[in-house]
Amino acid sequence: MILSGTGEPADVFFEDLTPGLVFDLGVTAVDEVEMITFAERFDPQWYHVDGDLAARSPYRGLIASGWFTAALFMRAYVEHVLQRAAADASPGIEELRWLAPVRGGDQLGTRLEVLGRRPSSARPGLGTVTLEGTMSRLDPAGYPEEDVLRLRFRGWFLKRSAA
Amino acid sequence: MILSGTGEPADVFFEDLTPGLVFDLGVTAVDEVEMITFAERFDPQWYHVDGDLAARSPYRGLIASGWFTAALFMRAYVEHVLQRAAADASPGIEELRWLAPVRGGDQLGTRLEVLGRRPSSARPGLGTVTLEGTMSRLDPAGYPEEDVLRLRFRGWFLKRSAA
Repeated sequence: MILSGTGEPADVFFEDLTPGLVFDLGVTAVDEVEMITFAERFDPQWYHVDGDLAARSPYRGLIASGWFTAALFMRAYVEHVLQRAAADASPGIEELRWLAPVRGGDQLGTRLEVLGRRPSSARPGLGTVTLEGTMSRLDPAGYPEEDVLRLRFRGWFLKRSAA
Repeated sequence: MILSGTGEPADVFFEDLTPGLVFDLGVTAVDEVEMITFAERFDPQWYHVDGDLAARSPYRGLIASGWFTAALFMRAYVEHVLQRAAADASPGIEELRWLAPVRGGDQLGTRLEVLGRRPSSARPGLGTVTLEGTMSRLDPAGYPEEDVLRLRFRGWFLKRSAA
């Protein structure tokens, strides 16, 4: 039996990830205390950690470290996809864009689209999948209002035929 | 007076960031407890959080979430460059590669090279700088042993002439 990224039986394999497929990765609430704590440790720039300076700046208040937003994306990806996928590691990110500021209290809707895939030449039991993730701030009615993060990355997945 | 990313007087401007310039971003020790705590919250895959499963796997022990390594890079970049630079936000990352596993107890040496720069057409007081960061695991004598993270990204910096 093949285990998923969180150690459970996997039911999503390379063959299942057809280009155009879209996963709903749910809604993430941005906790302002956690957002500031993260920035104090990893990205202590004033517009991430100093509420007074931030309020008097063009940002009109604290904004999240882009790395915090990216980490929230990863959590949503693990919960909704990797938890049930036969995934190996990722070689990296092709492109990441911080499109708009994220603030405490924001509700972020996340989705993931399969852009393409090909068998791995170096590792025959695996395939490389190119994915695009997008996080959007939702309006009070829960509709996407503005995209805040977009990233294109690759992941390795086991082939069902090799499992 | 122009403030740096951490609110102090800035002394590094767009004009100072000449292509080829290299910044030493110091040495970061990877704390295993923090590494696991980060992964439990943001990237709870078994090879990041389950020591028993990880020990019996080809990884031969826990490895860091790639987002944790990236966050450690950001911290070193803030401490050694943004703290004294007239920096605006970053539009994003051009490419990021996780080149080798990172483990608790690793000592990571970090450097940053200026790859290129151009004035911003949209924002005349700013320039766009392309930067490449590299983290390398150091051997016990403190020499780079293996690169573990490389990322190419852009940052906006104020022009001294516009300050």
